[in-house]
Amino acid sequence: MSQTHQVSPIGYLRTPYRAKEDTPIQGAFRPQSTGTIEILAPYVDGLDDIEGFSHLIVIHLLDRGGDIRLRVLPLLDDETHGVFATRFPARPNRIGLTVVPLVRRDGATLHIKNVDMLDGTPVLDIKPYVPRFDAYPDATEGWFADRPERPKPAGRE
Amino acid sequence: MSQTHQVSPIGYLRTPYRAKEDTPIQGAFRPQSTGTIEILAPYVDGLDDIEGFSHLIVIHLLDRGGDIRLRVLPLLDDETHGVFATRFPARPNRIGLTVVPLVRRDGATLHIKNVDMLDGTPVLDIKPYVPRFDAYPDATEGWFADRPERPKPAGRE
Repeated sequence: MSQTHQVSPIGYLRTPYRAKEDTPIQGAFRPQSTGTIEILAPYVDGLDDIEGFSHLIVIHLLDRGGDIRLRVLPLLDDETHGVFATRFPARPNRIGLTVVPLVRRDGATLHIKNVDMLDGTPVLDIKPYVPRFDAYPDATEGWFADRPERPKPAGRE
Repeated sequence: MSQTHQVSPIGYLRTPYRAKEDTPIQGAFRPQSTGTIEILAPYVDGLDDIEGFSHLIVIHLLDRGGDIRLRVLPLLDDETHGVFATRFPARPNRIGLTVVPLVRRDGATLHIKNVDMLDGTPVLDIKPYVPRFDAYPDATEGWFADRPERPKPAGRE
């Protein structure tokens, strides 16, 4: 039953953020935060035709996400929530997800915005964002409702 | 450099689909396709407050996705594309993603719609869908543009 599966990077993120306290709470809060995805040579052929998409879903490894916990104190709230009701990094399997605008492709390099990942973060997958499949503007926000961006609370990251 | 990482299921999907040829091309094409996510006991505390969200991002393992390829023939087109420009299952790391409406939670069970996964698919992560972070209704669709749902082409799955 403990069916494990091994994943490995298809590339790495280059971002302005070397320390967790410097990363934005969410990429969507920092639309002008730019960076690149550098795809490893064996995977570059998988990028063909990606230029046609304005947005990508980047699935990455939260490799510095800290200890895994099931109840966490997210950065936008002062009450704990189940980790699967948050986007907090300290989650089982450490899989992160950010929707990013694609600025341009330059060979093995994807120039992106909305960057909220640490520099050097391993990338596990890239998917094209397709509004028909992925855009639900009327979805309810649960505890996120009425929680605007704010500075990261002191001592939390 | 070959930095591998091990993931393991937090739960499993129960769906009507036992064979690949029966699964919808995309869950969004089958809004009334229902199923459940059964969360494993050690992870149930991570679900606290998930009821407040109308939509969830389900990250799962495409455990029957076939051989990994970098250029694939997606089900909505008759030309090949780089796998990272498609949602095709035969992708490095075999990570799948579907945005699903949450109908209700019943303890360790999440009742969902838009189901396009095979029965027994391992679930790796669940994230709350937050429109401010995830909804980009005006994103461009690349080669998906003008590709409506169609029956799966014969011999492809």
